Amino acid sequence: MPDRVYLDWNATTPLRPEARAAMAAALDLVGNPSSVHAEGRAARRAVEQARAEIGRAVGADARQVVFTSGGTEANSLALTPQVRRNSGFPINSLVVSAIEHASVLAGGRFAPGGIEIVGVNSSGVVDLDRLREMLVDRPPALVAVMAANNETGALQPIAEIAEVVHEAGGLLHVDAVQAFCKIPFNIKELKADLLSLSAHKLGGPKGSGALVIGEGAAGLEALIRGGGQERGRRAGTENVVGIAGFGAAVKAAMASMADEKTRLQNLRNRLEISLRRTRGVIVFSAEVPRLPNTTLFTAPGLRAETAVIGFDLEGISVSSGSACSSGKVQPSHVLEAMGVGPELVRGAVRLSLGWSTTQADIDRCVEAWRKLAGALLKGCDETELERF
Amino acid sequence: MPDRVYLDWNATTPLRPEARAAMAAALDLVGNPSSVHAEGRAARRAVEQARAEIGRAVGADARQVVFTSGGTEANSLALTPQVRRNSGFPINSLVVSAIEHASVLAGGRFAPGGIEIVGVNSSGVVDLDRLREMLVDRPPALVAVMAANNETGALQPIAEIAEVVHEAGGLLHVDAVQAFCKIPFNIKELKADLLSLSAHKLGGPKGSGALVIGEGAAGLEALIRGGGQERGRRAGTENVVGIAGFGAAVKAAMASMADEKTRLQNLRNRLEISLRRTRGVIVFSAEVPRLPNTTLFTAPGLRAETAVIGFDLEGISVSSGSACSSGKVQPSHVLEAMGVGPELVRGAVRLSLGWSTTQADIDRCVEAWRKLAGALLKGCDETELERF
Repeated sequence: MPDRVYLDWNATTPLRPEARAAMAAALDLVGNPSSVHAEGRAARRAVEQARAEIGRAVGADARQVVFTSGGTEANSLALTPQVRRNSGFPINSLVVSAIEHASVLAGGRFAPGGIEIVGVNSSGVVDLDRLREMLVDRPPALVAVMAANNETGALQPIAEIAEVVHEAGGLLHVDAVQAFCKIPFNIKELKADLLSLSAHKLGGPKGSGALVIGEGAAGLEALIRGGGQERGRRAGTENVVGIAGFGAAVKAAMASMADEKTRLQNLRNRLEISLRRTRGVIVFSAEVPRLPNTTLFTAPGLRAETAVIGFDLEGISVSSGSACSSGKVQPSHVLEAMGVGPELVRGAVRLSLGWSTTQADIDRCVEAWRKLAGALLKGCDETELERF
Repeated sequence: MPDRVYLDWNATTPLRPEARAAMAAALDLVGNPSSVHAEGRAARRAVEQARAEIGRAVGADARQVVFTSGGTEANSLALTPQVRRNSGFPINSLVVSAIEHASVLAGGRFAPGGIEIVGVNSSGVVDLDRLREMLVDRPPALVAVMAANNETGALQPIAEIAEVVHEAGGLLHVDAVQAFCKIPFNIKELKADLLSLSAHKLGGPKGSGALVIGEGAAGLEALIRGGGQERGRRAGTENVVGIAGFGAAVKAAMASMADEKTRLQNLRNRLEISLRRTRGVIVFSAEVPRLPNTTLFTAPGLRAETAVIGFDLEGISVSSGSACSSGKVQPSHVLEAMGVGPELVRGAVRLSLGWSTTQADIDRCVEAWRKLAGALLKGCDETELERF
C-alpha cells in the first residue's frame, strides 16, 4: 500500500520535526516549573522560552501569554463577564459570530440566554454593518470573531471589526486557532484584546494552547483556580512537554510562513481546478480572501460521510466539517449561517493542506476523486456507512 | 559533579521508562481522536487504551474516566454545585478539609462565601466527629477530603468519611493525586463519588490528569465547554501524547506498587532515623498511617527556603511545602491546620521518594544534612537567600 495522504490539517497536524525534537528533549525535564531547585528551574526555562516565542509571533510580550490545554480552554477562559477594557465600563453581554467554533458558541461563563449572534454573508464573512447596528446604544459588549474560519478558511476583517467594537466601548476576542502561523497576525496592529491560539493546528502537539491578553484588556478571571501558575490566570502544573513542542512549532512555522503561504496556495489552487472539472462542484468562500491551505467543496448528491470513508479507503484522510464532535454527524452550522441549502451542506467535504503536503499528495487526491466521484454523486448508500 | 539526587517526588516525578516509550510512540499519532479516518481512529485507540488502564487501576469502568489537563483541573471540574447523588437531593454547599490542595480550597464553582472547612487533628488527620456534626440537620453537601496529604503524607480515613457523608445524603470528592499508585485505591470499596488523579505524581507527564465519576454521582457540568469530547464532560482536543504517557505510567506503577511500597517505606524509615539524630528534629504525622514515600520534618531555628537552597547546592532536590505557588514562600496551611507553631512551620522541609530512588540517594541526602544541619539550625541568613 502506498503511504497515506493526510489532507485534514485543519483538524490536527503531524508534528513538525522541530516540535518533536523539543518534546523529546523535554521528556528529560524532571522538575516542576514551580520548584526552586535546579530541576524546577530547568523546566521553568523551557516554559518561558516557549512563552517568549509565542508572544513574539503575535507581537505581544511574553507576560501577556497564558498557557492553556488548547484552543477550547483558551476560548472558555476568554469569555468571562468580568473582563473589561482597562479604563472602560464593565462588560455584561457577549456577541459572537455565527461561524465560530463550538467552544465560542458555548459562550464560556456568559449566561446562555444572553449570547447574541451576528450573521455572515453568503461568502462566510461577518456582516460588519449588522455588527455596528447591534453595538449601538447599549452597554459595552465582548465580541468574539475568529480570524479565519476552520471549515471554509474565510478570513474575517479583524482590524475593521476591532474599530467598530472599540468605538462602542467593547472588547474583541479573536479565535486565531486556524490563522496563527498560516497568515500574519499581530495583536497590536489588529487591535485584538484577547487572542486564542492552539499548538496542534500548526505542527505542535494536541493539548497545548494559549490565550494572549491584549494591553487593553483587564479583569480576566481564572477558569481553573487554586495555584499561582500563569500569574494567577490559570492554575495547575504546566504541560512542559506540550509547551516546549508548542514553542518550537511556532518558531519553525513563523520562519517559513511566507514561503509556505505561496506554496500551499498554489497546491490548493491546482487541487480546486481539478475538483471543479466535476460537474456541479462548488468551492465555498472561493470569492473572498481565505487561508492558503483550505478547500471546502460540495456537489449536489454528495454525502460527506460517505465521501470521507471513500477517501479513507483510498488512503486519503479528509474531513466532513469540524472534527470536534466525536464522530457525530451534524450539518455544518457554518454553511447554514451562509445560507447554503441542506442538500449542499450534506455534501461538504474539507481538504486542508500543511507543511508536508506535496504535489504528489494533491495528484493522489485528484486521482481518488476521479475514481470516487461517479459513485459518490449518485447519493448516499446507507448500508456502506453501517458496514464501516 | 556527581549525579543529582531528586527527592521531590510529591511535586513531580521523572517519567517512567514505560511512559516515555508510550509518549515517544504517540508523537507519531497524526490524527485528531475525533476524526473518523484511519489516523483519527489510531489516536482514538491510544486514548481509549489509557482510559481503560486508569479505570482498571481504581476499580472503575473506562467510561467513568474523564481526561483533564491535570489534578487541578480535575478538582475544579468536580467541585460544581450542580452535582448530586443519582437518586438524591441536589447539592448546594461544599465542605472541604483544612489540608486540601489549593485547587480544592478554591472551591471550584461554589460561591467562595459558602465553603466550610473541617479541621484536622495534630497528626493531620481529618476530624471525623466534627465532620459528622457539620453534616447533621442541613441540606446535603459535597465533601472534599484528599486520600493522602501532599505535605505530610498522612492518609485520611476515606471509607469512614464516605459513610458519614452518604448517611447525610451528601457526595464525597476525593483528591487522590498523591495516593494513586502509591497505595491501593478502589473507588467502589471506598465508596468515593468523585476522584481526582494526576499523571505527573506517578511517573507520567505533567499536564495530564483525570476525574473519575463514581456510579452514585450525577449532574456534573462541564467546566470547559463546546465540543462533544469526553462524552460532553470536557471539551477540547485530547492531549494524546500526555494521555498515552499517563496510561503507560499507571500500568507500570500498578504492576510494581506492592513491592515499591515496602521498598520505599524502608528507605524512608532509614532516612528518618538519620534525620532524628539531629537534636530537635520533628517528623510530622509519623504517628499515623502515611504514604510510604514522604517525610516532612522541621527543627527549631530551621528556615525551609535556606534548607532547600542548601540541599540544592549539594545536588539534592527537596521542597519546602507545596510547590504549586510559583516560588512564593508562604507558611504551610497544612501545618497551621495541625496547630504547629509558626517557628516550626517556617522550617518544614519535605523529602519525597520514588521509583528510581536508591539507598545511595538516601545516603547522599543524609550526608548533605549532616554537613548543612549545623549552619542551617543557626537560623536563616537573609543575604544567602538574596545571593541565590
